Amino acid sequence: MVDVIERKRDGYALSEEEIAFFVRGYTDGKIPDYQAAAFLMAIVLRGMDETETAILTDQMMHSGETIDLKKIPGIKVDKHSTGGVGDKTSLVLGPLVAACGGKLAKMSGRGLGHTGGTLDKMESIPGTRIALSDEEFTNQVKEIGIAIIGQTAEIDPADKKLYALRDVTATVESIPLIASSIMSKKLASGSDAILLDVKYGSGAFMKNVEDARKLAKAMVAIGDKLGRDTKAVITSMEEPLGFAVGNNLEVKEAIETLKGRGPQDLVELCKTAGALMLVQSHIAADKEEGERLIQEAIENGKGFEKLKEFIGAQGGDVSYLDDVSKFQVAKYIHEITSPKAGYITRIDALGIGLSAMKLGAGRAELTDPIDHTAGIVLRKKVGDYVEEGDVLALAYTNKEEVAEVLRDIGGCFLYSKKKKAAPALIKDIVS
Amino acid sequence: MVDVIERKRDGYALSEEEIAFFVRGYTDGKIPDYQAAAFLMAIVLRGMDETETAILTDQMMHSGETIDLKKIPGIKVDKHSTGGVGDKTSLVLGPLVAACGGKLAKMSGRGLGHTGGTLDKMESIPGTRIALSDEEFTNQVKEIGIAIIGQTAEIDPADKKLYALRDVTATVESIPLIASSIMSKKLASGSDAILLDVKYGSGAFMKNVEDARKLAKAMVAIGDKLGRDTKAVITSMEEPLGFAVGNNLEVKEAIETLKGRGPQDLVELCKTAGALMLVQSHIAADKEEGERLIQEAIENGKGFEKLKEFIGAQGGDVSYLDDVSKFQVAKYIHEITSPKAGYITRIDALGIGLSAMKLGAGRAELTDPIDHTAGIVLRKKVGDYVEEGDVLALAYTNKEEVAEVLRDIGGCFLYSKKKKAAPALIKDIVS
Repeated sequence: MVDVIERKRDGYALSEEEIAFFVRGYTDGKIPDYQAAAFLMAIVLRGMDETETAILTDQMMHSGETIDLKKIPGIKVDKHSTGGVGDKTSLVLGPLVAACGGKLAKMSGRGLGHTGGTLDKMESIPGTRIALSDEEFTNQVKEIGIAIIGQTAEIDPADKKLYALRDVTATVESIPLIASSIMSKKLASGSDAILLDVKYGSGAFMKNVEDARKLAKAMVAIGDKLGRDTKAVITSMEEPLGFAVGNNLEVKEAIETLKGRGPQDLVELCKTAGALMLVQSHIAADKEEGERLIQEAIENGKGFEKLKEFIGAQGGDVSYLDDVSKFQVAKYIHEITSPKAGYITRIDALGIGLSAMKLGAGRAELTDPIDHTAGIVLRKKVGDYVEEGDVLALAYTNKEEVAEVLRDIGGCFLYSKKKKAAPALIKDIVS
Repeated sequence: MVDVIERKRDGYALSEEEIAFFVRGYTDGKIPDYQAAAFLMAIVLRGMDETETAILTDQMMHSGETIDLKKIPGIKVDKHSTGGVGDKTSLVLGPLVAACGGKLAKMSGRGLGHTGGTLDKMESIPGTRIALSDEEFTNQVKEIGIAIIGQTAEIDPADKKLYALRDVTATVESIPLIASSIMSKKLASGSDAILLDVKYGSGAFMKNVEDARKLAKAMVAIGDKLGRDTKAVITSMEEPLGFAVGNNLEVKEAIETLKGRGPQDLVELCKTAGALMLVQSHIAADKEEGERLIQEAIENGKGFEKLKEFIGAQGGDVSYLDDVSKFQVAKYIHEITSPKAGYITRIDALGIGLSAMKLGAGRAELTDPIDHTAGIVLRKKVGDYVEEGDVLALAYTNKEEVAEVLRDIGGCFLYSKKKKAAPALIKDIVS
């Protein structure tokens, strides 16, 4: 192992044998943490080329079980977001793609810190199960076209171990390591095509668009080298996506969106990403046709019907989807008002995400409980004009002492006398 | 600690607080090996400036006991070699400097791998003790001007722990880490002035003169910043120093040298380094005067008398020094002869050092026993002409099966039809 560390330290590209030796040895516990830590730091500072990154991904993917989706006929397409605030896209996009004939067999995650997780949002609909047997999962995708479940414990153990070590050794920030971590899990879950939503900005892991583009390109290159059709959209997470942040609040917004009354930015993202996924699924010939099909699935209600079918199949009480007034509402709803008049130029996504977490919507640690009713609903977005005293946002919580959080939410808004248009949500498409 | 790793990873210079936090935390066991390993790799790849390196050295020096030599009047001067093959310099230089009035209170080390150690050579003189009490050590330097002992266990625990980790994480090769490791131990042993012999070449840790010069400059800069008069000579270790390699063989050569019959390269080194040490001790006004004083101490026999005084004070049987035929001789002495005629252009120091180790003179692991009689005595040096069948070297051993080692020794010699002068032993002086 010392030789392998030394070669990376000295800037050489590593061979398949060397990378396999590391991934297997570290996963098995034969290579100690301190050698892995030195190796990871050498990767952070020396980098890895596309071939090395693809090999690393391949080895990580094969460190545990891989899901076989061959029993499901046709092209299976997956979607992954690098995480953000108010990102309920999967709950809208998934049903829309499935309504158009796509097959989405997706493993999703839970929220942590300022970011939300699709599994938590699903569980805010009473009865919904996020653990299905292999057979249930496969059959549901076959019959309905969509299933979303939690990652099973046996997938990609190398990533779990490496991520825990990276977190405590300042070796998280590395494009090859981030790209291989995401892609190894996605590839292990067996879909033929992958659509990545790489977010940048305050509420995203990548703080600027250049880094997001690098990460997107690295992941698309991995997909290419390992024979999976991979595309990426690069989207802004400077302000929260849509208006709602928090689990059942976001579900209600997803339903509104499927009923044709969604926020402009969320609709735009679902149309673009959905169109690409339909192209990847060989259902649409090009992006324009894909967008038209997605638009139709919204307008004719087939997307919403698919959401009900999907949630119902996973045990959820669909009467909540038909009548959203059935959802439990937090005990307290606080108004956050504008201290002055002007155009809103910024709504800090990170600040909103952390505040929603503090209201009860999220977790500081993965084992913390969450409150499905807590969160924030924005009333204004970047570019809107407000008078002094206008309501900027509503804070939903069951907690008593939240004065500081409410002040923080107010502090997330910046104003200007001049109107500033919100930046384009979709910055680029990488394929 | 993650923040400190991150700052070094991103190329920032660390503050005294940050470096102290690391050295203390790691020595105390509060910072785990994996964080230290990532941090060390970040240092290897990002470097440390002179100020950081001096702070690191200072913190390491103060991680354990430091020796107080204030009871010894005058300037105490120390000498350190970065290690080589046939390097018996301390046993010649130490007595010569002391004979001229210098005060040498030195902690030395044992041999490992292809390199020898002064303590092992001293112990090849029957009765010699390398462990003295603080009082014995101080009194001996006061009265005789020289004492050489083993490093006590309480010195520089940070270096011991860091070196063990660097060895298994490919983080040895770093000028700031090497310089701070050497200098922290030297500074902890309390001398006012330090003369460093930084070796380069096949048998040295630094393989080329440029790296040796960088290391020398880094160590001299540390000495400057921490208020110790530090100078360095940069010397070749392409071929072994002198003729003898192996413990009592080298002692015999040291005696010959003190009697004025030493090999040219060893004499040159002792004169130059000795002169610098006399300047550092304020005994000689300049290098020329220092060289003259050293030369006199060889010619008038005072250096040899000082060796006897010094070894005698540490319990050694000085009758061996007066009559070297008393030294035990290895059971087997094999001749290595030249397979052809020509000028010798190279005698690989690393190969000779490893072969001597295999004959019994050295250790593969620090706990291995050694044979004081084993080793190699060269009969030829680079630049000499040989006829086919001339004896190149004698191999001394008590082992039976050494045919392969003898072949290896022969393989260390390279020949040419044209005479090639040996390169200058002393490449540079850094002060």
